[in-house]
This record gives sequence, C-alpha cells and structure tokens, in this order.
Amino acid sequence: MPDSDRILAHYRIAAPAAEIAARARAIAVEQSVEMPLEAIADSRVLSDIVGRVEAIEDRGDAFRVTVSLSAETVDGDAGQLMNVLFGNSSLHDDVTLENADLPGPLAARFGGPRVDMATRKARAGATGRPMSCAALKPQGLSVAALAQLAGRLALGGVDVIKDDHGLADQAFSPFAERVAACAAAVRTANAETGGSTLYAPSVTGDLDRMRAQLRLAADEGLSAALIAPMISGLPAFRALAIEFPHMALIAHPAMGGAQRIAAPLLIGKLFRLFGASAVIFPTFGGRFGYSAQTCAEIAAAARSSWPGVSPALPAPAGGVTLERLDEIVEFFGRDAMILIGGALLAAPDVTACARQFATRLNAFAERP
Amino acid sequence: MPDSDRILAHYRIAAPAAEIAARARAIAVEQSVEMPLEAIADSRVLSDIVGRVEAIEDRGDAFRVTVSLSAETVDGDAGQLMNVLFGNSSLHDDVTLENADLPGPLAARFGGPRVDMATRKARAGATGRPMSCAALKPQGLSVAALAQLAGRLALGGVDVIKDDHGLADQAFSPFAERVAACAAAVRTANAETGGSTLYAPSVTGDLDRMRAQLRLAADEGLSAALIAPMISGLPAFRALAIEFPHMALIAHPAMGGAQRIAAPLLIGKLFRLFGASAVIFPTFGGRFGYSAQTCAEIAAAARSSWPGVSPALPAPAGGVTLERLDEIVEFFGRDAMILIGGALLAAPDVTACARQFATRLNAFAERP
Repeated sequence: MPDSDRILAHYRIAAPAAEIAARARAIAVEQSVEMPLEAIADSRVLSDIVGRVEAIEDRGDAFRVTVSLSAETVDGDAGQLMNVLFGNSSLHDDVTLENADLPGPLAARFGGPRVDMATRKARAGATGRPMSCAALKPQGLSVAALAQLAGRLALGGVDVIKDDHGLADQAFSPFAERVAACAAAVRTANAETGGSTLYAPSVTGDLDRMRAQLRLAADEGLSAALIAPMISGLPAFRALAIEFPHMALIAHPAMGGAQRIAAPLLIGKLFRLFGASAVIFPTFGGRFGYSAQTCAEIAAAARSSWPGVSPALPAPAGGVTLERLDEIVEFFGRDAMILIGGALLAAPDVTACARQFATRLNAFAERP
Repeated sequence: MPDSDRILAHYRIAAPAAEIAARARAIAVEQSVEMPLEAIADSRVLSDIVGRVEAIEDRGDAFRVTVSLSAETVDGDAGQLMNVLFGNSSLHDDVTLENADLPGPLAARFGGPRVDMATRKARAGATGRPMSCAALKPQGLSVAALAQLAGRLALGGVDVIKDDHGLADQAFSPFAERVAACAAAVRTANAETGGSTLYAPSVTGDLDRMRAQLRLAADEGLSAALIAPMISGLPAFRALAIEFPHMALIAHPAMGGAQRIAAPLLIGKLFRLFGASAVIFPTFGGRFGYSAQTCAEIAAAARSSWPGVSPALPAPAGGVTLERLDEIVEFFGRDAMILIGGALLAAPDVTACARQFATRLNAFAERP
C-alpha cells in the first residue's frame, strides 16, 4: 500500500514481459531524480524523492505500471504536476499516462473550479435538464456579423453562447470590440425574451493578454469565458481560475488530443483540477473518434466526488445535432451541457433552430 | 502553387485511399472555420479564411495532406498558431502534424530567439567546437548541496551548467536561494579558473512567476535560463523571449514527446520560432527512442537558414556519455551543445570528469 501522501501515476507501457520490471524502475527514476541512483548520496532524496514502482499489472496487450512520486516536488504548480506525471516519459512513444491519483491536500491546494456550474445551471433555470450551448463562428466574420448572430441565438433562448475557440484577438474582429458588441446583443435579446443567456467569449494569448481580456469581459458583466488550456498553457489556465473566482471557465480541448495522455485524465480530471467549471469534449458518434466508453469516463471524471475539488460540468460537442439530442441526453444525463455548433448555424432560421434546441432540453425537466 | 501569404500545414493521415479526399477537405474546414461551408454567407470568409487542400500525396502507408490556412487568423500569437495548425485535428488520432511552412512576414513577426547562441559560443571560446553542458540534479537536494555541485562542475570548465528541469520553486530548494547560491558558486569557480561557465537556472510556473524568476536571474548577472515550453505554455515562452532579449532561453522537451506533432517541427522549428536560443532533445542511442534520422532532422530544423529568424543551437542529450562523445560530435557537428547529465554526476570525482568532458570538446577546435 503506497503512502497516501504520494502522487500515484499510472502508465500504460507496451513493453515485453521480460523488460517490464526494468522499464518500470526506469520510469520511476526518470520522473523523479532523472539520474543514476548510485550517484545520489542524500538519504532523504533516496527515501522520499525517488519514484517508487508500486504495482505492475499485466493487461494482456500492455502493462499498467503504477509509480508513486513525492508531492513535495510539485508544490502546487500546475506545470510542475504535469512535469512530474509525464515530462520526460512523454518522450517514450510506447508510454501512455493513463491516470493519476493525488493526495488529498495536494488536490485541495489546486482546488478545482472556483465557480460550480450547478449554481449557474440553477440560476439559468436549467434544473432537472442539461444546459444548452451554441457557438459563435466562423472566425473571419466582422464584429457586426458576429454580434447579429449572437443576438439571434440568444433570442432562441439557449443557455450559453460561446465564441468559437478560433476567435482570438484578430484584426477582423478584435477582442474588445467583439465582446462589447456580442455582450450587448445578448443583453438586448435577454431583455426582449426575459431570458438569461450567458455569453462566454474566447480568451487567448499569454497570461497578460488573457488577464486583460477577462477584465474586459467582467466589465461587460460577463461571468463565463472559454479557454483552451493546452493552447494557453496549464499554469496560465490555473492562474486565471484563481484570479477570476466569479468567472466560470469553460475548457476547450484544442491540442489536447495530441497528447499521449488518456482523455478522461486530461480533460475530465486535470482540466477540472486546474479550474474548469465545464469541460468540452468530442462526443462519440460525431466527427471525432472518441468512443462511448471514453466519453462516459470523461464525464465521470468531471463529475466524480472529490473532496476539496468542485465538479466540472461535462459538455459533449463536435457533431451533436437536434436529431441526436435524445440519445445524447440519455447517455450523458441531465447534469451536462450539450453543445451544438455548426448544426444550429446551418439552419435557415437560426433563432427558430436555437429555440427548438432550448425547448427540447427544457422538456427534459418535465420528465420523471 | 498556394499563395505565399498563407500558412502551409502538412498532415500525415492514415486513412483509406477512398476516404482521403473527404478527410483532407474536412481537416481544411476543421482547422479554419469549423462549420458547414453552406452555412457561411460571407464571401471573404469563404475565399480567404476557409482552409484549402493544396496537395494530397500517397506515401504508401499513409497520405501526406497539405492544407493552406490564412495567416490573418494567427495574428502573431503563438497559441493561435498552434490552434490553427493542430487544435481540433489533434483530436483525430490518425492525424499527425508533420510540418508547417509560414509566410515570411509571419515568421519574422515571431522572429525566433533574441539571443543568437553563436555569440555566446564565441564568447565562451567555443569557436570550432561544440559547447559542453552539464546538469544540476537531483531535485530534493538542499541549496547548499546544489551550489557545491555547481561549483565542482564549473571548476571542471564546462561551458554551461543548467538546472535539471525538475528543479522548480520547491520548498527544499526555493528558486531565489538556489539561484543566488549556484550563481555565486559558479562565479567563484570562474574567478579561480579564469573560465566563463554560464549557469542557466530552470524557470517554472505561470508567466508572472517565470518573469519574476528571470528578473532574479538577471539581477544575479545570469544570461541564460532553461524553460520547458510545453509545460509553461508556448504563449508564455514567447512572451519571455521578447521581454528578456538578453537572456538565452534553452528549451527543454518535457511533455513535448506526448504530442502527435513531428519532433523536428515542434522542437527544431516551433520552439526556435517562439524564441529558443538552444533546443534540448533526446539523442539517438540514448535512453529515449528517437532515431538518428529524427535527430538529424531536429538539428537541421534548428539550424536551417530562415530569413528573419535566428538559428537555435541543437543540444542532444538523454544518455550521452564520454564514451560516446566522438560519435555524437561527428554526427551533430561543431555547431551544437552536447549535454551530459547523469553520467558526469555519477563519476567519483565530478570536477575531473567535467574537465575531461570540456577538454575532449576543446580538442575538436584544434582538429581540421
């Protein structure tokens, strides 16, 4: 039984049985001291800092190796946690990071999202049903065109309108102008319908620029934003989650699939740990290849009970259509946010289609 | 012939021949507007912003698909460049980003490293030979122990001593104390030997913390630092390269191998583009699995002529020993930095071993 104050990293390694014990030891060293043990004289380093192989399980086509690592080496830094879990071992292309378990105090120190989407969900009147989410795109449209589209979607009564993650601070729709115009369009629509559609702009660039963008968004009265943590960098994502405790951060998976890190760990568990209130991921049956099982595991990781760490709302996306809505809701349950992007925008009447989407989801609240 | 003002992204796609044309079109859409084209009314978006399939080549076991993308959508943002190149397509596990070509003005806008290591190399008297680099580790050692080790390595006359990338701002060796002590130890050793060993501390955390750490390093008179761009986030890496134009940033590949992005592109080309003066990568024949060809391609990408973008010094590492030194130098040439980490530290007399390393490399300057 490993010490409960150590990090447990679980790797999948496609190595021959004859080599697995040595490979496991090598990974334990690589992910901790990264040097020959015989060259280490310090006894505390040898006893505490060096990684330990805790278990090796034969999974048939590969081995699952569990290594325990010192939590001291992480010290509450998101980048350092990634480094300790998979820094150098990422350079071995037969190694996948399957899962990780953190000691309670370390998890609590990261603390997860500052905004629990359950509150936002209740405030949006979305009790007993999933939230609806639409996307503003394509990039390249003018500010006026995007704002018009935002207004149309909001008139349809979707709960959340998020910028496409491709919308940055480009010359054709600069962040400040775009966000002011879209926020105003959504406010106007809300006033007309009595609704409470949230607008979540896409925040990009380095920490300084993202911070300035979130301040602008807060000044516009917005309370949610979209960030792609693997693009922005996880340390920046975490810094913003702490600095803007009233802003629900919706994590976009861009660049996240390029990782040899299991999606339920990266998207469901780590994005949540570092501060995501909701996590977008490509649903099964859409235009990406994630299986139903992977999707179920992502949703479970995002919602699971975790002392000191609020849950994140799973947000399946990437090819959801109105035709598939019942199937998707049945699969992910009501504690979710369903994202329909392109399929809404392709409708001849965007507002009518958005209204149909919202109405269909509202109906779930009436069902037993 | 694609417009020379567009970004060219080259993907390797393992799809059947009957599907490749449709897959290529889908990727061109996914990486640009990410929505059905029939839902786009704006003619400028259709003509300029939507990605174009420029070429499909059958490579036998897979296809190479070249897509051109608008440079306007990137706007000089490192994260946005990654997003445009491989954001959503990273979520398809049969797609690899093989290479990318940038329009001249966009490349020049990123501008590569602010410090050309050739200058540092000349100043270190390393003309006509590779630079030598040693590593301070393991993490977990006290500040005093690390400083003592730094002094011993510097007495041996290596050109650069870098912190292990595991050294962060941990309680057992806080950044400020560690860097002051190690810098002092190296200064003392330089005064004794008349040498000019550089000390490059490991800089970690979010942009605010890294910036504060680099300021401390600069105050200590240091002119080089180690950063892992895939841990820190590429936007933060680029921001620091611009903000500290006299600090040579040495890029560490941690987490970089987890990407389904070809190593010569990520490590050799993109790390360089975003500001790395030197790029560390695992050499062939060491404890990582990179082939000799991959290593040659990384070195070529780092050193190739690129208008407006200074070169980066290739730094092979990960299992180099004194025994392999001639082979490594012969392979990578003299325009490189050779990193020996653990093998130096495991020697009974670290200074003697470091001196042997430095002397062996010095000898290359005498050869024709």
